[in-house]
Amino acid sequence: MTAPRADVLLGIGDDCALLAPQAGEALAVTTDTLIAGRHFPEDAAAFDVGWKSLAVNLSDLAAMGAQPRWFTLALSLPEVNESWLQGFADGLRALATASSIALVGGDTTRGPLVITITALGTMPAPLAVRRSGARPGDAVCVTGTLGDAALGLRFWQERTVAKEGPGKGEFAADLEQLYARLHRPQPRVGAGLLLREVAHAAIDLSDGLAGDLGHILDASGVGAEIRVDRLPASAAFERWHPQKDRLALQVANGDDYELCVCLPAERVAEVRARLDVPLTEIGRVTAEKGLRWYDASGRQLDIDLTGYRHFQ
Amino acid sequence: MTAPRADVLLGIGDDCALLAPQAGEALAVTTDTLIAGRHFPEDAAAFDVGWKSLAVNLSDLAAMGAQPRWFTLALSLPEVNESWLQGFADGLRALATASSIALVGGDTTRGPLVITITALGTMPAPLAVRRSGARPGDAVCVTGTLGDAALGLRFWQERTVAKEGPGKGEFAADLEQLYARLHRPQPRVGAGLLLREVAHAAIDLSDGLAGDLGHILDASGVGAEIRVDRLPASAAFERWHPQKDRLALQVANGDDYELCVCLPAERVAEVRARLDVPLTEIGRVTAEKGLRWYDASGRQLDIDLTGYRHFQ
Repeated sequence: MTAPRADVLLGIGDDCALLAPQAGEALAVTTDTLIAGRHFPEDAAAFDVGWKSLAVNLSDLAAMGAQPRWFTLALSLPEVNESWLQGFADGLRALATASSIALVGGDTTRGPLVITITALGTMPAPLAVRRSGARPGDAVCVTGTLGDAALGLRFWQERTVAKEGPGKGEFAADLEQLYARLHRPQPRVGAGLLLREVAHAAIDLSDGLAGDLGHILDASGVGAEIRVDRLPASAAFERWHPQKDRLALQVANGDDYELCVCLPAERVAEVRARLDVPLTEIGRVTAEKGLRWYDASGRQLDIDLTGYRHFQ
Repeated sequence: MTAPRADVLLGIGDDCALLAPQAGEALAVTTDTLIAGRHFPEDAAAFDVGWKSLAVNLSDLAAMGAQPRWFTLALSLPEVNESWLQGFADGLRALATASSIALVGGDTTRGPLVITITALGTMPAPLAVRRSGARPGDAVCVTGTLGDAALGLRFWQERTVAKEGPGKGEFAADLEQLYARLHRPQPRVGAGLLLREVAHAAIDLSDGLAGDLGHILDASGVGAEIRVDRLPASAAFERWHPQKDRLALQVANGDDYELCVCLPAERVAEVRARLDVPLTEIGRVTAEKGLRWYDASGRQLDIDLTGYRHFQ
């Protein structure tokens, strides 16, 4: 059902799949679980659930700089619902095909709706981008825009629809875009493969910039100064976000699935020119530990923002 | 928390784990989900749940003839219960250490109790034992004994305890053994590594001999004749099984996690001598398709036994 690959010696249907990693390449492995009502709205479309289940795992491979190769799917669902399963499979297949990753194993059981995907990628080991390599002076950059998924989730939860009247068309289009960012995140696989050549450290933004960048800083034993006025935002976000929640939506909410990367400041322009997604420099790594936020005037902001936490 | 391995370049704590497969080896991948009340009793001990979650995946690696190397764990649980988590981790660690397999990734979320493990093993690709290689004339063999877990489950569900009186001590010991077979199956990893040298086909018995052997026969385009009087049984099983259910417990119920292997009949004695677990020849592969059962007198039995099926 997904991308055929010559390195799959034996696919689904036996006790195990058999895969042929390329000699000398390291294997990157990641696993993520999605639970209805927790990681996606209960009323999300089946296509979107399938898409997102794979996307969040591809995003982890991207952060490492790995080339996606194979994945397994464990799907527990309350009942056999053919139309839901078809939609789910379509969404999964659409992203798998686009990412050249092959489904090689699965287990379907009856139970609560829980989806676990384990994704495997490969790369030359020295090119793997860890969280621990950030150095003082590095530029802190992010791909794409921040806050769209969080704003989309808020509209979704409020069951927002575009109302008749002036501006209806524009709002409807923006809403659609925000919902797409929420339900069908685009893992930055291509960007990850390019960035691995220059990045000292990287992470994917699943829980929010504040928390996720914090992981890099902790692992690297450094700090960072971030300019909140430089956080990239989409036009849709700019038009419709509640001003008072701007920062929270951009740095304390999750589901962006952009990459946050620390790299030598002098390489930013060069690598930006080669990417197919915007790369924005939002601050610098410092030897002084801690994550500090500044506004455009250079005033330090007294905020304590942490990302989404499980078990809260 | 599990076996340290030199081929783990980067363990838990980054976006991905980084592993170093040996050049020229194929990768065997399998994934299995366990749901409380479905794959283990709701009141099973946490240690046993941890053990069994890994065991069922190791059993798949064993059937393929793979050497266990790494696994990921996705654990969803309703609340943070430190003592349950400790027991679960202890059980997982006990089997992981015994099997030299390293935990390299995990995702813990709040939700219904669902455990998904993805296990990775390696082997020279030509030695992988598939389901599809059985040939007419092959001996059909099974490791260990059949029916213990099914009988144990029945006693467990009936909340059987050894009562005071004659024979109490023997029954208590047998009950403990049957419960151990149910809750802490021993994946036949060592046997799988030896059997891969001679086996034409293999599968692990998770859903019952009738169904699982059926998968080999279907994949190989052959049939088999099985002698029910030759099905190996433990002394505990012999002492306590209800006679009318003997066959059902041995071939139509799951959770044995023994290996069913088809190999050249003339190699059985030689390979049996090298195994650390009993290997019993229970029948032969035939060119005629279908699975046929015979008793000790050579009379064909008119039974339709199929293994445990999901979504029934």
